[in-house]
Amino acid sequence: MDLLKPSRANSSPMSPLGFLERAATVYGDCTSIIYNETTYTWNQTNNRCLQLASALRTIIGVQRGDVISVLSPNTPAMSELHFAVPMSGAILNTVSTRLDARTVSILLCHSESKLIFVDVHSSSVILEAFSLFPPEIQPPVLIFIDDDGEDTENSTCTNDFDFNLEFTYESLLKRGDPDFQWERPHSEWDPMVLNYTSGTTSSPKGVVHSHRGIFLASVDSLIDWAVPKQPTFLWTLAMFHANGWCFPWGMAAVGATNICLRKFTAASVYNLIRQHRVTHMCAAPIVLSMLANEPGINPLSNHVHILTAGAPPPASVLLQTEKLGFLVSHGYGLTETAAMVVSCAWKSEWNKLPATERARLKARQGVRTLGMTEIDVLDPESGSRVKRDGLSLGEIVLRGGSILLGYLKDPIGTSKCLKEDGWFYTGDVGVMHPDGYLEIKDRSKDVIISGGENISSVEIESVLYSHPAINEAAVVARPDERWGETPCAFVSLKPEKSQPSQKDIIEFCRVKMPHFMVPKNVVFEESLPKTATGKIQKFVLREKAKAMGSARLVSRF
Amino acid sequence: MDLLKPSRANSSPMSPLGFLERAATVYGDCTSIIYNETTYTWNQTNNRCLQLASALRTIIGVQRGDVISVLSPNTPAMSELHFAVPMSGAILNTVSTRLDARTVSILLCHSESKLIFVDVHSSSVILEAFSLFPPEIQPPVLIFIDDDGEDTENSTCTNDFDFNLEFTYESLLKRGDPDFQWERPHSEWDPMVLNYTSGTTSSPKGVVHSHRGIFLASVDSLIDWAVPKQPTFLWTLAMFHANGWCFPWGMAAVGATNICLRKFTAASVYNLIRQHRVTHMCAAPIVLSMLANEPGINPLSNHVHILTAGAPPPASVLLQTEKLGFLVSHGYGLTETAAMVVSCAWKSEWNKLPATERARLKARQGVRTLGMTEIDVLDPESGSRVKRDGLSLGEIVLRGGSILLGYLKDPIGTSKCLKEDGWFYTGDVGVMHPDGYLEIKDRSKDVIISGGENISSVEIESVLYSHPAINEAAVVARPDERWGETPCAFVSLKPEKSQPSQKDIIEFCRVKMPHFMVPKNVVFEESLPKTATGKIQKFVLREKAKAMGSARLVSRF
Repeated sequence: MDLLKPSRANSSPMSPLGFLERAATVYGDCTSIIYNETTYTWNQTNNRCLQLASALRTIIGVQRGDVISVLSPNTPAMSELHFAVPMSGAILNTVSTRLDARTVSILLCHSESKLIFVDVHSSSVILEAFSLFPPEIQPPVLIFIDDDGEDTENSTCTNDFDFNLEFTYESLLKRGDPDFQWERPHSEWDPMVLNYTSGTTSSPKGVVHSHRGIFLASVDSLIDWAVPKQPTFLWTLAMFHANGWCFPWGMAAVGATNICLRKFTAASVYNLIRQHRVTHMCAAPIVLSMLANEPGINPLSNHVHILTAGAPPPASVLLQTEKLGFLVSHGYGLTETAAMVVSCAWKSEWNKLPATERARLKARQGVRTLGMTEIDVLDPESGSRVKRDGLSLGEIVLRGGSILLGYLKDPIGTSKCLKEDGWFYTGDVGVMHPDGYLEIKDRSKDVIISGGENISSVEIESVLYSHPAINEAAVVARPDERWGETPCAFVSLKPEKSQPSQKDIIEFCRVKMPHFMVPKNVVFEESLPKTATGKIQKFVLREKAKAMGSARLVSRF
Repeated sequence: MDLLKPSRANSSPMSPLGFLERAATVYGDCTSIIYNETTYTWNQTNNRCLQLASALRTIIGVQRGDVISVLSPNTPAMSELHFAVPMSGAILNTVSTRLDARTVSILLCHSESKLIFVDVHSSSVILEAFSLFPPEIQPPVLIFIDDDGEDTENSTCTNDFDFNLEFTYESLLKRGDPDFQWERPHSEWDPMVLNYTSGTTSSPKGVVHSHRGIFLASVDSLIDWAVPKQPTFLWTLAMFHANGWCFPWGMAAVGATNICLRKFTAASVYNLIRQHRVTHMCAAPIVLSMLANEPGINPLSNHVHILTAGAPPPASVLLQTEKLGFLVSHGYGLTETAAMVVSCAWKSEWNKLPATERARLKARQGVRTLGMTEIDVLDPESGSRVKRDGLSLGEIVLRGGSILLGYLKDPIGTSKCLKEDGWFYTGDVGVMHPDGYLEIKDRSKDVIISGGENISSVEIESVLYSHPAINEAAVVARPDERWGETPCAFVSLKPEKSQPSQKDIIEFCRVKMPHFMVPKNVVFEESLPKTATGKIQKFVLREKAKAMGSARLVSRF
């Protein structure tokens, strides 16, 4: 038995790229992409990706392991690049279109991108980003993506930088060979994608995933969400956001119709759902709220499966979207896990519960997906698992096939999250409920340790958000001589409301939480500092709180 | 980028065993198994498997890597052992209940089984098998499985061999600890299951699969068959047959209700389908025919998904089962691939075709599943891929995650199928159709090479089977001075029909196939030699044909 070892046939590298060729065989004449008036079949998408991959090799001279970046909303090109770039042997780095030029230039330098595909509507950002490059560093080759996939040989954007704008996306693609033998990974551990995290707690980090990781994440999500064959998927989730949770690949696996879109409103989403009989979509919580609050919407004629993550959907939003015909699933993932790796697996017996109770259960992140081998919540002091009581806070740790390979050029960051004990440390703080369902309470850096008690800043914030005059709220630790740390709240107020004082807000909190959790200070701000993706930068506030010095001594009771 | 290597968190071994714990968390109160009047929940199944695994370690003294065999039909115990045995660190070897005592004793010796669980109804076979052990070899520990999961401390079977019959399955299980920490694989390449092939072409071979292979095969089949959550699965496929195509594990992944049964008739299958609202089942082609031909059956009130493999379903059977409400999927797998790895992915446009055309398309084995990285048909001479013309015969080769680790104690057999070129050679001969769908034509050993032409013995057999008087038919190569080989047919006749001569049958063939394919000889037999699982042993017939010497010289035209 010990003589039986892996061989080339059984250890043939796993990769999601093969999903495309298979889709062309099985779903060749079926629609792969709809974007405004443009449509493609899976045969065409396969050929186009092969052509582009071939052109990248033979015309641009792309080498195995080069990084190719993309700055684009959810266009057909963006979808194709998820296959074409790694099929050329290169590593795909999708860049958020919400970033400013300075951040874009930092990411392009850090990733040493050889080439960047840029949607024409982002031309000013990229040109500014290039102008910010240090003089000794050559910016990447720039290729513009014309809108609507139309071939316009003459690019419309200004070119003050003497770039080689010989090719547009379409003209380059057309030079490629649809019979190209795509570059298969030499090992399933070969890097395939690079994604920069949004950096709520520190500067952006380059998360690298392997072919193996993306393959496992893609199939894992299909099973977890029970995606049938040939669904119609609406791209309300940005593909540049953690590769759209791996669904560009997953949708090829099931031969889906991808409805691409540049931007959307609640009204346009409803129109697309009805026009194309959408069956599946992913949405950040804000999109869910947007859909729930759109006035004058009739219930959908067909159910739409909607997957959300990032923050638990509030009860009112859940109730309203479910009334309209959405089937909401809630889960949890990080850029570092490639896709959703914890999901709130729903039990049919819960359907009988009152709406608020259903919302409370659905707000929990849930259980590991099949692709994760283990998940746990570890006590920060002892390192052992916390009690399954729904109360004991600890750091959420994971192990399994879709955990990142590591951070690019950051061995310290890598070793901090991929520890010797075999766990990936998420930096998120949660509890384990008695029924084995996980619930996130906070980022570990945001936990306030006061007199030995762990206080979840998120719990205080949720109380603050229930105050009618508060627009934004963030709670961080302030150093304290007696307690070590105390909670310090930063808030911005709604302009139209009466303006409460610090005392009013502290009083408001006192009746809604244990006294030791009540913020000792409330700082009013015009608006709170945020990242490019709109997340509040707590590390900025933490610095402010630190600069305030020790809080005055107050009695806890 | 090159510095990023696998770490313990992202290379945490894949294994299907974790599906069980997850099922207990998500589907704890839902039914896992129904067997006559016995039912279990997923919580109970999880606890029972942990108990048994614990008892195997602490009471029996099972060590990591020991082989534990099972001889049982589809009882709850059989289902549980698919988890409990590998959870103890041991390797599961399921033995066909159709084997004779001599073969069972050979397999137990070859596998060096430390323990065997035996259904009480197979007690005489196992006791005879033990009596056939060479005197120097100690038979494995014998533990009987009482029917219906009932605990009877006093085993009812005779014990002439002074075995330690201290425990039955139930009494051993009850001594175990449900809080046992199961033995996780040290590596995902650790062996997990051992299955002996039925040996149509040679003596039985011990196929070993790793935890990784079984994990990938299980999830791959769930996606390929688009199995939803919480299906009701009827166990008409024997679990001892290639581990029931990995569905004991797959059904835990989706929290299914498993309907276990000892044996069945068409009538009892229909009863169970209606009683339990069965949604999914697997069936050998013979079972499909049985269901199609059962008289007086009304169409089902709900569709039942049925997966078949082994031989393409005939048009008449397909038509009849579909009329009754079965949704038939057809695929291809070998013991060496753990599960179905090629499936006839159905295109909705084919639904418009006439029934015979639909049957012709569905008879093809199809396209690779997502878990296979590549599949091809290679020319035996040149080793290059055959033309995609649906005519050029070649050997079917595969690579991907669920290909066997190797054959136990058979390095030559292992290196013959897992070749240096990175392909697994199936030994099956097929063609690739222009649309990329694969169709099997024969076993490679059964191809007859006559005057440089490859002749599929299966094609001749299918013509012979259409003769009204022929009961069984098998065609093998007979040595020939001029042509190298010529086809030689062995047939048995239906007793009630008029008895055709050799000349009659050759005439019958001449009008239905090219002349070079027509058998030069027809040998009449009472019945053809078969394996324990009912497959015709062509190697026996090949020896007979060889002993006949060269065929007389005949002109081909």
